[in-house]
Amino acid sequence: MVETIRWSDGVVEILDQAMLPHEVKYIRCSVYGDVVRCIKELNIRGAPAIGIAAAMGIALASMEADVKGREGFDRKIGIAIDALLASRPTAVNIRWACERMKALLQRNADSSVEELKGLLLAEAQGILREDIEINRQIGFWGAQFIKDGSRILTHCNAGALATGGYGTATAPMRQAIAEGKRIHVYADETRPVLQGARLTTWELMEDGIPVTLICDNSAGALMKAGEIDLCIVGTDRTVRNGDVANKIGTYTVAVLASVHALPFYVAAPFSSIDFTLSSGDYIPIEERNGAEVTNVTGKCQIAPNGVKVKNMAFDVTPAKYVTAIITENGAFKPADLEKLAAWDVNFENFRIKA
Amino acid sequence: MVETIRWSDGVVEILDQAMLPHEVKYIRCSVYGDVVRCIKELNIRGAPAIGIAAAMGIALASMEADVKGREGFDRKIGIAIDALLASRPTAVNIRWACERMKALLQRNADSSVEELKGLLLAEAQGILREDIEINRQIGFWGAQFIKDGSRILTHCNAGALATGGYGTATAPMRQAIAEGKRIHVYADETRPVLQGARLTTWELMEDGIPVTLICDNSAGALMKAGEIDLCIVGTDRTVRNGDVANKIGTYTVAVLASVHALPFYVAAPFSSIDFTLSSGDYIPIEERNGAEVTNVTGKCQIAPNGVKVKNMAFDVTPAKYVTAIITENGAFKPADLEKLAAWDVNFENFRIKA
Repeated sequence: MVETIRWSDGVVEILDQAMLPHEVKYIRCSVYGDVVRCIKELNIRGAPAIGIAAAMGIALASMEADVKGREGFDRKIGIAIDALLASRPTAVNIRWACERMKALLQRNADSSVEELKGLLLAEAQGILREDIEINRQIGFWGAQFIKDGSRILTHCNAGALATGGYGTATAPMRQAIAEGKRIHVYADETRPVLQGARLTTWELMEDGIPVTLICDNSAGALMKAGEIDLCIVGTDRTVRNGDVANKIGTYTVAVLASVHALPFYVAAPFSSIDFTLSSGDYIPIEERNGAEVTNVTGKCQIAPNGVKVKNMAFDVTPAKYVTAIITENGAFKPADLEKLAAWDVNFENFRIKA
Repeated sequence: MVETIRWSDGVVEILDQAMLPHEVKYIRCSVYGDVVRCIKELNIRGAPAIGIAAAMGIALASMEADVKGREGFDRKIGIAIDALLASRPTAVNIRWACERMKALLQRNADSSVEELKGLLLAEAQGILREDIEINRQIGFWGAQFIKDGSRILTHCNAGALATGGYGTATAPMRQAIAEGKRIHVYADETRPVLQGARLTTWELMEDGIPVTLICDNSAGALMKAGEIDLCIVGTDRTVRNGDVANKIGTYTVAVLASVHALPFYVAAPFSSIDFTLSSGDYIPIEERNGAEVTNVTGKCQIAPNGVKVKNMAFDVTPAKYVTAIITENGAFKPADLEKLAAWDVNFENFRIKA
């Protein structure tokens, strides 16, 4: 399986996704500033993946801290955290990872600097391991919806490359294959940034999972022709009523699935469910630079100079189009999500079965 | 208004669409072989446009024919027709234009070679003029569906560049503006070949018509946000039951329009309605080279080497999603199309009004 990010002999190695699929190259980060630059320049992307990168960046910063006293050490780590937080200001996973590393420092107020260096590294490696384990659980709960011979449409990249490994939307596919089911994946190319064409096809081909690339425009015609059995996508943020924010075009896939009576699944780590928002109407939709549309991969200009562009990066799929939210704790009806926030919830009472 | 093709002092001038939007350059065709090459190499595209090009190519061939006798002249014209037919074997408009030029030769069996040269040129120029006139009529019947302030989504390019001028899907927009209505056009970029990004935006900007480029993926989110009022697209072939074949992705736009209760109009010259086919199920869907998907504009590779691609060039939109077919004879309900084939049909009995 593709390794998105790894710790190797005191160095963080990050698979350079900006070069994919043309070149498979790991960037060696020996100081935390290298990690900051990788996040900024999109060498690593995907919400869970950049959270892990931030944690490893902090572990690197602790190795760099050439101080003996605890106060100086904490100050050095604080500087690194500030730089990591500023690298992608809107990324909640970076903040989450930094909070977790800070909590570790607070829990170990009496530990020596040398002890803390070991603890921070162990925590960062733990975050990576946990992420993969969560994805495997998503795979476990999701594979039941995949039959032998299923043809699965996915949108964008919610694969190993977006996470510590194994992926979210790809997890049920990997588990289905492990169970001996034959599957075929159709990957939407996912304009404008083409994560499907550049990343999803690449990682599935690397792992020998049958995949066919299509233009986003072809999804409807393929469904109409009876060539798709189900859809599985990831999510950037799912909210309490089951509305799902994800890469632009996800909503269109969901509408098409509904019209063709196909199931539409969302693979979502529990941490990506925002129980504080009651509806997708409150999720702000980021608009990005039109150059993403007019200059493909930043190189090929495809539209007139000065053309007006509207480039919505995400869209919100209403809960009514979502067959199930597949988490590490089970697959749930979107309408049941709000009940899952309770601290004493028994997930078994809400799990749905294929 | 943009001139796609024109006759100028014994030369056919073709706007080089392969260079758009980067360069506005006319290719001067002084012999019919130049026209054949322009059609083959997609310097000119769009069903009505290449029909006109074929007719002008035949007029050029007649100027080149350095013979006095009628038999030799007809043979030379026959050779040119064969070359034009072979330039895009599946293009019905080339065949239609060649048949019309051949019929002219047959109707004028006693005319001299010099007389025929004049007649053929007049016929070719007539085909161009008629095409524009048909489009203006489409505009007349279509503009009623556009209100002051309407925001119109279109897909692919069914504009002036695809025709002799004025366009089919763009005709109601142009007429609405002539009537003093303010409109805004959203142009789907239309992957894989990007006719929307490259051509529709360009021709609307040239004519000062407000246009915003979006990724195909954004159409659904825009409709959901209430930013689209109606859709107008062109068609490659519409059949007797009102099913509409058009560029891939058109079906998705129609489904989205239906879900958002937005009208979906198809601008179709009567000549593009195939009354011989009873249903869209019988329209063969051309699959094209995957390189159109993996290599944007033939230059930027966006996917791994060896990736499997499914590249459907067209899709079929069932009649139930079509609000009206707008022709030069009026706007009609798709269910009424089959009644319009009768030689003595009174169009007025079937026309629908906004």
